[in-house]
Amino acid sequence: MVTAAAAPVWSVDPRTGKRREQVAVEATAAEVDAAVRAAHAARPALADRTARAALLRRAAELLDATGARVIEAADAETALGPGRLTGELARTTYQLRACADAVDEGAFLDVRIDHADPSLTPPRPDLRRHRIPLGPVAVYAASNFPLAFSVPGGDTASALAAGCPVVVKAHPDHPATSELVAALLRRAAADTGLPEGVVGLVHGFDAGVELVRHPLIAAAGFTGSVRGGRALFDAAAARPHPIPFHGELGSLNPVVVTEAAAAERAAEIGAGLAASMTLGVGQFCVKPGLVLVPEGPDGDRLLTALTAAVSDTEAGVLLDHRMRDAFVDGVRARAGLPGVEAPVTPGAGGDHTVAPGFLTLPAARLLDDPDGYALLLEECFGPVTVVLRHSGDGAVGAVLAHLPGNLTATLQLSAEEGAGTDPAGRGAHLLAEVTALAGRVVVNGWPTGVAVAPAQHHGGPYPATTSTATSVGATAIERWLRPVAYQDTPPALLPPELREENPLGLPRRVDGRPEPA
Amino acid sequence: MVTAAAAPVWSVDPRTGKRREQVAVEATAAEVDAAVRAAHAARPALADRTARAALLRRAAELLDATGARVIEAADAETALGPGRLTGELARTTYQLRACADAVDEGAFLDVRIDHADPSLTPPRPDLRRHRIPLGPVAVYAASNFPLAFSVPGGDTASALAAGCPVVVKAHPDHPATSELVAALLRRAAADTGLPEGVVGLVHGFDAGVELVRHPLIAAAGFTGSVRGGRALFDAAAARPHPIPFHGELGSLNPVVVTEAAAAERAAEIGAGLAASMTLGVGQFCVKPGLVLVPEGPDGDRLLTALTAAVSDTEAGVLLDHRMRDAFVDGVRARAGLPGVEAPVTPGAGGDHTVAPGFLTLPAARLLDDPDGYALLLEECFGPVTVVLRHSGDGAVGAVLAHLPGNLTATLQLSAEEGAGTDPAGRGAHLLAEVTALAGRVVVNGWPTGVAVAPAQHHGGPYPATTSTATSVGATAIERWLRPVAYQDTPPALLPPELREENPLGLPRRVDGRPEPA
Repeated sequence: MVTAAAAPVWSVDPRTGKRREQVAVEATAAEVDAAVRAAHAARPALADRTARAALLRRAAELLDATGARVIEAADAETALGPGRLTGELARTTYQLRACADAVDEGAFLDVRIDHADPSLTPPRPDLRRHRIPLGPVAVYAASNFPLAFSVPGGDTASALAAGCPVVVKAHPDHPATSELVAALLRRAAADTGLPEGVVGLVHGFDAGVELVRHPLIAAAGFTGSVRGGRALFDAAAARPHPIPFHGELGSLNPVVVTEAAAAERAAEIGAGLAASMTLGVGQFCVKPGLVLVPEGPDGDRLLTALTAAVSDTEAGVLLDHRMRDAFVDGVRARAGLPGVEAPVTPGAGGDHTVAPGFLTLPAARLLDDPDGYALLLEECFGPVTVVLRHSGDGAVGAVLAHLPGNLTATLQLSAEEGAGTDPAGRGAHLLAEVTALAGRVVVNGWPTGVAVAPAQHHGGPYPATTSTATSVGATAIERWLRPVAYQDTPPALLPPELREENPLGLPRRVDGRPEPA
Repeated sequence: MVTAAAAPVWSVDPRTGKRREQVAVEATAAEVDAAVRAAHAARPALADRTARAALLRRAAELLDATGARVIEAADAETALGPGRLTGELARTTYQLRACADAVDEGAFLDVRIDHADPSLTPPRPDLRRHRIPLGPVAVYAASNFPLAFSVPGGDTASALAAGCPVVVKAHPDHPATSELVAALLRRAAADTGLPEGVVGLVHGFDAGVELVRHPLIAAAGFTGSVRGGRALFDAAAARPHPIPFHGELGSLNPVVVTEAAAAERAAEIGAGLAASMTLGVGQFCVKPGLVLVPEGPDGDRLLTALTAAVSDTEAGVLLDHRMRDAFVDGVRARAGLPGVEAPVTPGAGGDHTVAPGFLTLPAARLLDDPDGYALLLEECFGPVTVVLRHSGDGAVGAVLAHLPGNLTATLQLSAEEGAGTDPAGRGAHLLAEVTALAGRVVVNGWPTGVAVAPAQHHGGPYPATTSTATSVGATAIERWLRPVAYQDTPPALLPPELREENPLGLPRRVDGRPEPA
């Protein structure tokens, strides 16, 4: 058998399209296997919750301490800019520390104890249940968040918090950053007495496919495109032993502007929309991609404000040139549909940049020929949004009925609609309609900006996500666990989490009721 | 297009193999579609938690009131006997009432509120999250529980509790019982002011496949074979819009008997094993199917007791003649493997019955040729178990390493091992080993008998289940929900579950902490 030469992995400057340096080589099947085996071997060490919390906090410390270098590395290969990356680094370390706090509290263990009851028919045995780690998790890094949804990001932090080692498949848009921060995570492991195998890193498309198929991989987390995510989801489901695949794939993030809202706040909404859809050069999974704006003069004023603000927004660099080409092609295909207009034409800016813009179409045209306009209901990654001009409730409902699942849905309501005092009860009606379509509903705000908070939900009906779980917030930890119940198990053998005297001070439900703290 | 004549659905007496009556016809694709649409249309009515709880309690009342007829119908087509079916009916109504109690409490809504915090960077919006019903659920009834895991069973009860209408695919082993109890459930719906579409019923293999593929079906629950369950799981995953598929497929339910346990309790363990493996003619998904018994005189005494007890157990009727044939063939294939002995030969009893028995093999033989003995590590439905004689810890660990995932694992330990005072620490070591393999661990008891309790977990690594969820106990409700978060939503528009003043008195976490009751 002839072994092909190892394929080089290059760090590329998206501002020039030029290679910066060779960072690594793509992992062979044997290398993927070695990384997974090292992760698998690290499970017993990660079973110690105190060690897990220490690892997460040490990782945050090292990222903070190395912040300048990390931000420089990430900016060089993503062009996201030091401002955005400084915020993203803070988000990343906040997530790591929030996960450490969740580990300390232990609510995700969902401890339940039912004492034996010999008076029942049949007699009930003693049952004690908690959640245990699934095993090594494959993490697929996102292009658009080189830190917060990549090597040290939410999937990694939540998996480690759950007690699961990870093997990260690096995104080709930031391999140097990936290597740098993976080394920091491994140093954090060493500093806290854990094996370095708790965090593995592999590069390469084929390596990513090997990873999800590896028999010792127990679950996967993914943030990326519908096409790539679905292929990996299918591979996970087709395994001899299928595994949970938590993928965040794609989302249109519809916005509905009512006539009354436009009458009240046309300029504010237009400017807010422009800021949200162009933020980070439109490279957020929660970018508003479809906006229902009323016909008539108030809607026109909204578009005037949108036009002014988008026109004032500079061209920007996308994460890589393949995305730039896809954006230019995607915009061209959409703009070429009959009746579509481009008040501000999005597309190629300079040789390496793209210019933001937006497209408009009467909602009635789309409703007359939904198949012909199906492309407008697909996400287009980059600084573009599609505005459908609507004639009121009927048209809004009809358009919403055509939409796939979404991470978010946003309502722009008037004061009266928000207060529920309008005769039509429009706010409550619209809220119910968009709740069916999305995992997070935003009222009179914008979907960009996903707070890391216990009540957050970042997920939604397919294709927004492939599961009902969230990838942001403390409940993301629950993805990497499975319950196990112990029946009539002698106290001396029980894990400390399940002992009667609650030596770890965990929140728990006893005999069906929450135990007072 | 020529429409084939509707295929009849017969109720069959397994005690004679004869048809009793034609109960229904197999559902056409159009009929499946109509049932799903009726379920879908019933969603708004089920959104009312008070109505759901009333429905569940009314269903339990009607089942109790009609108990004699239900038991008679189920016995006639399953031969499970009035004693077992009386217990199963009690389990079924208990489940319905326990689900109603869970609906009243509302813990499964997992309400979380994070108040806005403008002092954070970036400022945190107000976020409020709860769980909402997924939509219509397809329930695939089990052969071996005509009530508790079928039309009015745990999947149906938990889905209705979650607010999801169901369409049940009846099992062909008890179509008359299915029609009878489905009518009771629909009457319960009518009695509580709900549309009858909250519970639909279809018959036929093809109807089952149509059901999991129907675009309006949002999730599925299944209890049955690995082959059937995997085919439906694959269909669920291959949909344009994949859906959660909670399948309970198959399990060996290994038992480990230590040398010290056999020395202390050989006769008791032998008799207990006989009772557990022959209970219900061995037709439980938690039947112990593989037992590791020590070599030597104490293990011999155990087998002597097992032999005596199994020999004293009468032949019984399986659920249908196809199962009887599969049992006879499965036992013959296993008994024919080199070195396998049959101290009590299982197989055909009379024309319509099967006789219980067990097979033995030295564990070393299996470990020398695991592929050659792979059949012994597959579930064989019916009153048979496989005893592997082991030489101690090394052999036990080696056999366990070959096992697939299981619903349960059982340890028979000595008093000293249970107390953790033996020098080898064998109890804790074995507990950790079998925890990796199973969803419920039983010590010094038997796996048959799955208590309906909040701390129960009925699930396990594949192929025991296709997800990490349980199908028994209150947490089964969580399978049919997805979270949705509301950001900066005006109080007047919020669902009552998420209002600040907590008008429904729900348990909730506020700003990251459980709120005192």
